[in-house]
Amino acid sequence: MKKVAFIGLGSMGMPMAKNLQSAGYQLHVFNRTTSKVNEMESLGAQGFTVLKEAIKDVDVIITMLSNDEALKSVCYGSEGIIENAKKDAIHISMSTVSPELIEELLKAHNKNQHFLVSAPVFGRPEAALAKKLWMVVSGDPIAKEGINNVLEAMGQGVFDFGEQVSAANLIKIAGNFMILSMVEALSESMALLEKNHISRQQFVDFITTTLFNVPIYQNYGKIIAQRNYEPAGFKLELGLKDVNLMHLASDRARVPMPIVDILLSKFMISLEKNRASLDWSAIELVTAENAGLR
Amino acid sequence: MKKVAFIGLGSMGMPMAKNLQSAGYQLHVFNRTTSKVNEMESLGAQGFTVLKEAIKDVDVIITMLSNDEALKSVCYGSEGIIENAKKDAIHISMSTVSPELIEELLKAHNKNQHFLVSAPVFGRPEAALAKKLWMVVSGDPIAKEGINNVLEAMGQGVFDFGEQVSAANLIKIAGNFMILSMVEALSESMALLEKNHISRQQFVDFITTTLFNVPIYQNYGKIIAQRNYEPAGFKLELGLKDVNLMHLASDRARVPMPIVDILLSKFMISLEKNRASLDWSAIELVTAENAGLR
Amino acid sequence: MKKVAFIGLGSMGMPMAKNLQSAGYQLHVFNRTTSKVNEMESLGAQGFTVLKEAIKDVDVIITMLSNDEALKSVCYGSEGIIENAKKDAIHISMSTVSPELIEELLKAHNKNQHFLVSAPVFGRPEAALAKKLWMVVSGDPIAKEGINNVLEAMGQGVFDFGEQVSAANLIKIAGNFMILSMVEALSESMALLEKNHISRQQFVDFITTTLFNVPIYQNYGKIIAQRNYEPAGFKLELGLKDVNLMHLASDRARVPMPIVDILLSKFMISLEKNRASLDWSAIELVTAENAGLR
Amino acid sequence: MKKVAFIGLGSMGMPMAKNLQSAGYQLHVFNRTTSKVNEMESLGAQGFTVLKEAIKDVDVIITMLSNDEALKSVCYGSEGIIENAKKDAIHISMSTVSPELIEELLKAHNKNQHFLVSAPVFGRPEAALAKKLWMVVSGDPIAKEGINNVLEAMGQGVFDFGEQVSAANLIKIAGNFMILSMVEALSESMALLEKNHISRQQFVDFITTTLFNVPIYQNYGKIIAQRNYEPAGFKLELGLKDVNLMHLASDRARVPMPIVDILLSKFMISLEKNRASLDWSAIELVTAENAGLR
Repeated sequence: MKKVAFIGLGSMGMPMAKNLQSAGYQLHVFNRTTSKVNEMESLGAQGFTVLKEAIKDVDVIITMLSNDEALKSVCYGSEGIIENAKKDAIHISMSTVSPELIEELLKAHNKNQHFLVSAPVFGRPEAALAKKLWMVVSGDPIAKEGINNVLEAMGQGVFDFGEQVSAANLIKIAGNFMILSMVEALSESMALLEKNHISRQQFVDFITTTLFNVPIYQNYGKIIAQRNYEPAGFKLELGLKDVNLMHLASDRARVPMPIVDILLSKFMISLEKNRASLDWSAIELVTAENAGLR
Repeated sequence: MKKVAFIGLGSMGMPMAKNLQSAGYQLHVFNRTTSKVNEMESLGAQGFTVLKEAIKDVDVIITMLSNDEALKSVCYGSEGIIENAKKDAIHISMSTVSPELIEELLKAHNKNQHFLVSAPVFGRPEAALAKKLWMVVSGDPIAKEGINNVLEAMGQGVFDFGEQVSAANLIKIAGNFMILSMVEALSESMALLEKNHISRQQFVDFITTTLFNVPIYQNYGKIIAQRNYEPAGFKLELGLKDVNLMHLASDRARVPMPIVDILLSKFMISLEKNRASLDWSAIELVTAENAGLR
Repeated sequence: MKKVAFIGLGSMGMPMAKNLQSAGYQLHVFNRTTSKVNEMESLGAQGFTVLKEAIKDVDVIITMLSNDEALKSVCYGSEGIIENAKKDAIHISMSTVSPELIEELLKAHNKNQHFLVSAPVFGRPEAALAKKLWMVVSGDPIAKEGINNVLEAMGQGVFDFGEQVSAANLIKIAGNFMILSMVEALSESMALLEKNHISRQQFVDFITTTLFNVPIYQNYGKIIAQRNYEPAGFKLELGLKDVNLMHLASDRARVPMPIVDILLSKFMISLEKNRASLDWSAIELVTAENAGLR
Repeated sequence: MKKVAFIGLGSMGMPMAKNLQSAGYQLHVFNRTTSKVNEMESLGAQGFTVLKEAIKDVDVIITMLSNDEALKSVCYGSEGIIENAKKDAIHISMSTVSPELIEELLKAHNKNQHFLVSAPVFGRPEAALAKKLWMVVSGDPIAKEGINNVLEAMGQGVFDFGEQVSAANLIKIAGNFMILSMVEALSESMALLEKNHISRQQFVDFITTTLFNVPIYQNYGKIIAQRNYEPAGFKLELGLKDVNLMHLASDRARVPMPIVDILLSKFMISLEKNRASLDWSAIELVTAENAGLR
């Protein structure tokens, strides 16, 4: 079985690495925080505190990091992946990062005869642990073929978006945009109804048993109706990165996306109101406040 | 069994009336177009060309009309419902109309000792025919109790939003807003992806088998991905009424709803581009054009 | 000299009526509040408490009222202007009202062989008193010719926008829109600068001595830089009417006006925050709050 | 008199350099295009084709370049200003660039004991030639004092915004935002009026002789009313840079600026419609098209 290095044991990376370990892969793990490395070692993985050594002679390198900066920091430099991965190694980038960075990394990897596959995921930590992630993948067909089993060990389905390596990143951005658009639409509806003395919860119950009878509406509908923003499923301050990626993508492609403008404003206002650690759906509070409801 | 008058045999009213007829109600039907009346007569209903006679001595009067104007025209005046309905008659208004009109009609009805129940529906003509409508209802509890069977004969579920008679109208407005917000979000996503040479259909296939695995996303996703706006399921020119109702509701309640502003702009632009008879989801074309995609 | 009836002695009407009186017109005045009537009587005008008598046998009837409702209330009904003005009387509507109402009044007046001229004004009460109002006028050419002296007695300039009677109302709406757009642009600029620790006042001093070296920018710039919203030059709650007129005009004509959407939101939010009696430029506070500046 | 190097002889830089030359400064000029250098040589300046030599032993170095990239290219590197300017040299950055770049350059200059003063200008090439530019300046007080005469030789007024070196850049961004907000407001007003068959030109004549009686409204009002977008005073494709600077500033400072969102959309749409070489006020065409006017 393939030797796999897993870089980044955060709230998403950790459960994903655990599933790979359970699936029988010979796992090298690397993380800045040693306690996470120790936890994986106790499960049988081989822990590393020097990145360069973690990836030496490894077939597949998975990165699951928080943003462009973090991904660049493990890729570039004399200790980084690009300099030190072996020939024909496949780097699977699973982070939510900009399509531009992925295209840039592809060029760097290709010079050193590595492959780069982009494979961002949809799902929260609980879904990662339960092997319920959805994955979207793009890049070189042969490389994708070679890592299919690896991906399948971490989720419930893989969707292939072709050879353009950044395609999966754009799909991830668009998917997050769909979720936040739903949050905004729910917020505006509920503000209208609450102001008219109609139960927010009853509205959610209605639409999520009829037209929008699907868990994502049920879960967010409930959170928003009850303003249950703590503890956060996904923190607002982290969500800003995703909204910025939407905005950057809209700018780069010259595609006016007015809902993105709304979302960006509401994230900015929310952060100014010290809601960084609330769930990202707490942007609803701005809508309610604008309506004089709080 | 109750004697029921059905006013308005349009594309929605006709299949609803048929279901009532099938359920065994003694039906009076009234419509401006005689051919529709004749069609119902052939099924056993009693047809009328004079409104006043259609509603005389009837227990329940259902109105299913296209807008506020049409509903007012059958309610007011010496030939109208308010003047001519019998004492204790229950008027079920099932049209998508403004909450203000419904509150106004309630007062007029109460003066003449009638009941008014508001019961707008969700679903298109095919759903109406298949008895698959969802209904939301509000108004006097005793009246609602009295007409429950009538409603159930026309749909698959009734959701009660309390005694405030216009509550169901606001729910209908909010529900339509949720649908159009989804249309706008899908349009913006697809424009971003198409501009980046990523398949619109593949994106729809992905999100509608995973996060948004529900018929309303599947159906609209397919229509929009394929730009299959003819024949229209619901015409853009009729949809403008619904968007105007959203806007009016937002204004009246002083609830800023920025997505409503976006929708209203796109409906206006679409009508200027002679798309009145396309499906209302054809507002997507404006988004695509703004991105230079057409 | 012409006999002139002046209807509406509010904060604008009063100084305008005084200037007419000074110019030597034989003035009939009518107002709901008797004290205002008395004040004009003390200056030599003839006061009336019955509208019908104030306008009997008068050549020119001027209305200066707060909104559509108020104008309708003096025009319609058995005691109103349309029923009681003499043949060939000229009604000059100087209120800021909807173009639709003006078109509707024209028809009613024409039936009774009256003329209707629309002549809204630009300027605040101080400008009215100082005879510094700007007037825009539209309607029948002969009627306009006939009342030119009357208008000139109340301001510093009259601009003719042709025969379409509602044209002047649309110009008034567009002019107010230009002013509020300036307020919004100043607000956004100043929020950006304040957040970067740059003096708001210094910015205003710079632009209003260079590019925007004109009193309207100087005055509003100063008010906004100093957040000097009390006492109000023009109250926010009254301004809402003007923004609603903009919005209605945009809707009727199907002209998307995104800055109007922004303004309407900010007025709604401001009213919810109990700022009804501040100057209408206090919508700036919402921009500042959204930026975390207050 | 001071020895001054002028870097960047574009449409703005050229007339500015000429005014410095006329004022008697000993001028070194550098530009990528030799013909521009030759033109200045014919007026008595000393031309250079090697940047490093142009700035050697010079007291004041002025840069007037098109964007961040261009400014970075002359500042950094072994041939650049930072490496090669003499001790105590004063770099005056007059380009419209990001505040972030200016702050970054300040640090680099300080390390080498140079001064950096930021001094962007307002005005088009004709104004530059006529010495009618307005300048805003910020940075070290002693350095500003030292270059005051230099600046005054190129314009009609200098406004000091303090010691924070990037302050003047933010003022420049805010000033451009004020201009484009005016363009957008004029565009929306005129679309509303044109759709109602009211003369655009007459509206402009009215407001620019009354409320907005100032050249910037008169000039842009005329251009827009007549749709006279060629030849461009300032090209749309260059204007995009300025709108992007506004957007970036809004993002960085977390100040929601909804008019900036509108502007950015309209610039994107305009570029997709191949209007790159029209005047930047041609964003009006999008507003007109959205209203069905073209």
